[in-house]
Amino acid sequence: MEKLIVIKIGGNIIDDAEKLSSFLADFAKVEGKKILIHGGGKLATKLAADLGVAQQMVDGRRITDAETLKIVTMVYAGYINKNVVVQLQANGCNAIGLSGADGNLIQAHKRNHATINYGFVGDVDAVNATLIDSLLQQNLSVVIAPITQDGNGQLLNTNADTIAQEIAKAMGSLYAVELIYSFEKSGVLLNANDDSSVIPSINPATYIDLKAQNVIFAGMIPKLDNAFAALNSGVSKVIIGKAEQLQQLIAGTSGTVISQ
Amino acid sequence: MEKLIVIKIGGNIIDDAEKLSSFLADFAKVEGKKILIHGGGKLATKLAADLGVAQQMVDGRRITDAETLKIVTMVYAGYINKNVVVQLQANGCNAIGLSGADGNLIQAHKRNHATINYGFVGDVDAVNATLIDSLLQQNLSVVIAPITQDGNGQLLNTNADTIAQEIAKAMGSLYAVELIYSFEKSGVLLNANDDSSVIPSINPATYIDLKAQNVIFAGMIPKLDNAFAALNSGVSKVIIGKAEQLQQLIAGTSGTVISQ
Repeated sequence: MEKLIVIKIGGNIIDDAEKLSSFLADFAKVEGKKILIHGGGKLATKLAADLGVAQQMVDGRRITDAETLKIVTMVYAGYINKNVVVQLQANGCNAIGLSGADGNLIQAHKRNHATINYGFVGDVDAVNATLIDSLLQQNLSVVIAPITQDGNGQLLNTNADTIAQEIAKAMGSLYAVELIYSFEKSGVLLNANDDSSVIPSINPATYIDLKAQNVIFAGMIPKLDNAFAALNSGVSKVIIGKAEQLQQLIAGTSGTVISQ
Repeated sequence: MEKLIVIKIGGNIIDDAEKLSSFLADFAKVEGKKILIHGGGKLATKLAADLGVAQQMVDGRRITDAETLKIVTMVYAGYINKNVVVQLQANGCNAIGLSGADGNLIQAHKRNHATINYGFVGDVDAVNATLIDSLLQQNLSVVIAPITQDGNGQLLNTNADTIAQEIAKAMGSLYAVELIYSFEKSGVLLNANDDSSVIPSINPATYIDLKAQNVIFAGMIPKLDNAFAALNSGVSKVIIGKAEQLQQLIAGTSGTVISQ
């Protein structure tokens, strides 16, 4: 199967114009078929503050009320998505920016939680792999904003890590998919404060050992659980590492490779 | 050639949630291949006011400075475009929302004017008809926000009427294109204050007569000149009329039909 690289880019890069520009130049150079999923960074929080829209937090999670949904739709699907696309175009990469509503790309449902009302937050039900494939076949690189829809006219705010994972899984039947989570750290670290303590590779057996030894930074556990879930659902390889080292992450000379 | 309907929807409908919803239900029912180009309405002006971004006007034209470009990108390509798409999806119309940057859909250049600096305003150079056609062939309806790009990383604000005309012209080699300008009036009026004074049809000969008699509302002249320019560049028919009467406009029982 042909290789497809699915890359999630984290908020800290989105917030830094210079780092973003450098990352996009690197992304444009990646050969073959590729998809970029971006988060929102602090721009939505800043716009909400500028507009006097109070942000409700419950258990450390942002609640997406109607005004906040309007803001994230503007910032994620409008400002960030189109600025990423126009920069990729300038770097010779023919990118097309979509939200999960476009072409029914990502169907979701409003989160139903026993005790917390998250507001207009969506959990993913299905991905339109046929549409993505048809765009990739036209040598377009697809840039996805983390906004989904419920099919009944409601846009929903959805976690970008989750979207990256669901896209990677859905494309796994058509391509040999490598999923890259690029963020501010150099990989999965043994010591959260030491960026040189990267674990170069993790498989199910070593993961059990590492968890038993209690040496993995707790914040990484959900990311790793998600990575193994993706591997169990048709993704070939998951790589976690620094956005500034995209080429090395793809070459396997940097970051943490998670595999079966 | 297969028929393609290109519809421009004006700002007054965008600004009215109920009218927009009703228009989109009508648009979803239109049979065959179709493209929707939307303007921005008053939402961008309101957001600029809320954010304290002063709007410069020169000779009645809004100047697009960097902050205003950011606002129109958020509002046109983000909020309005995705809300139109999600409502069409709910009406069973598989819509995909794009800006002119996506897939290099609309290439433009920053307007160079002898005396006025319009800021980040773009005049259209080319339309990627191949991409639009490939989406239409997948039974997608394309929804276009009036944001274009210069190929060098710069987004540009572009008049939606112009985009509708350029899209219609570009698609004219592949389809029998009907271009519909839907707005708040019932068509081209003999008396601007009498909505029943619609001229049902205009051709080049009757247009010369009407202009000689000085009976057409001055504000309609640029729209009509554009309509004839489109007809001279491969568009089959141009229809001008009320957004609330979309089906009648398509059926030819309402509005003004402009033809060769």
